[in-house]
Amino acid sequence: MYEGVVQDLIDELGRLPGVGPKSAQRIAFHLLQAEPTDVRRLADVLMEVKAKVRFCSVCFNVSEDEQCRICRDPRRDRAVLCVVEEYKDVVAIERTREFRGRYHVLGGAISPIDGIGPDQLRIKELMPRLNDGVVLEVVLATDPNLEGEATATYLTRLLRPMGLQVTRLASGLPVGGDLEYADEVTLGRAFAGRRAAE
Amino acid sequence: MYEGVVQDLIDELGRLPGVGPKSAQRIAFHLLQAEPTDVRRLADVLMEVKAKVRFCSVCFNVSEDEQCRICRDPRRDRAVLCVVEEYKDVVAIERTREFRGRYHVLGGAISPIDGIGPDQLRIKELMPRLNDGVVLEVVLATDPNLEGEATATYLTRLLRPMGLQVTRLASGLPVGGDLEYADEVTLGRAFAGRRAAE
Repeated sequence: MYEGVVQDLIDELGRLPGVGPKSAQRIAFHLLQAEPTDVRRLADVLMEVKAKVRFCSVCFNVSEDEQCRICRDPRRDRAVLCVVEEYKDVVAIERTREFRGRYHVLGGAISPIDGIGPDQLRIKELMPRLNDGVVLEVVLATDPNLEGEATATYLTRLLRPMGLQVTRLASGLPVGGDLEYADEVTLGRAFAGRRAAE
Repeated sequence: MYEGVVQDLIDELGRLPGVGPKSAQRIAFHLLQAEPTDVRRLADVLMEVKAKVRFCSVCFNVSEDEQCRICRDPRRDRAVLCVVEEYKDVVAIERTREFRGRYHVLGGAISPIDGIGPDQLRIKELMPRLNDGVVLEVVLATDPNLEGEATATYLTRLLRPMGLQVTRLASGLPVGGDLEYADEVTLGRAFAGRRAAE
C-alpha cells in the first residue's frame, strides 16, 4: 500500500522484537520526517555494532575486544565464577555492584520445547575454565523460571562432583514489593529460605 | 553500563517513538545476535528511505518521484480534492477504495498549544490548487479530534467564500462496534446525523 521503499522500511522495522505493524508504521513515519543526519546516525551505529561487537573469547560476554572488560580486569576475583544465561544478565548483576568475580554467559537456558539442550549452550566452553583449580565457587544465576531452574539443576549435577562449591541466587520477596501481591511460589520460597532476624 | 557501541545503539533506538529504554535494550540485544546481513538490510533501507523519499510537489504526499503515484494517475478525478493531515491518512483512505479524487496533505493540524497555526500547515500551497476552476469539491478529512475539527472549521471559513463545495467525513458509530460502548459525543453525533432507513 505504501510507496516501495517506505513499505520496505515498515517491513524491516516490523521484524524487530516487540515492534508490531502499527509501531513499525509509526516509527517509519517518524523517520520519514526526521533529519537525514539523525537517520544516518542510526544506520551507522547499526553497522558499527555488527562490525565491532563480538563475544569475549573467555566468557562470551559482549565485547569490543578479544576479551571483555571484565575478563581483562585484574581486580576481578578469579575464584568465583557467575554463570548467567545472557549478556543482559551480566549488565543487571554489574549494576548491583555486589559481585566482584567473573562471568560465563551460556547463551540461553535448557528448553526442550525450543529444541535447546545442554549442547546448544556454552557448557563445553565452561568446563575447561573450572579445571585449573583457580575457580572455587560457581554461582548459578540463571533466571528463576522453568528453563533457568532446569539449567541450574543440570549444571549442579555436573559441577558438584568436581568438588566445586555450587551456589544459587536466593529466591524470596522482591525488595520494595507488597507481601500480599507476591505469588504463592515466591512466598513459599521466602518461607523456606527464612533466616534469623538480625 | 554497556560496552561503548552497544550503549550508542540503545540510545539511538530509544529516540524512536514508542520505544522506551527497555524496548531499546531488547531490540539492541536482538540485533547483536541477528545475522549481519539482516542488520545491514535494516541499515540500508534506512539510508535508502532518506535518499529516495521526498514529498510530492503537488499534494505533499510521500513520493519517490517529483509527483506521487496518485497525482500522476490520469484516472483520478481532478474535481474532488481530499484534504488530510498526514501521509498515513492518505493510505488509510486509499485502503477503503471509496475515493477516486486527489489529495492535499497539510502536514498536521492547527494546535495552538504545540505552536502550530495555519502558517505552519501547507494551506498556502492548497490555495493555488483551488483557483483554476477544476476542483469543485473539497472533502475535509481531518481527524475527528479537537485539532482536526479546528483545522476543518478554519478551512471551511476560508474555502466556502470561494464558491467551492466543502464537505466533511460523516461522524457516527464505528461499524462493527457496540452501541453501548460508544462514547457520548460519538453517539450524539450519530443521532444528529441520522438518516432515513433504507
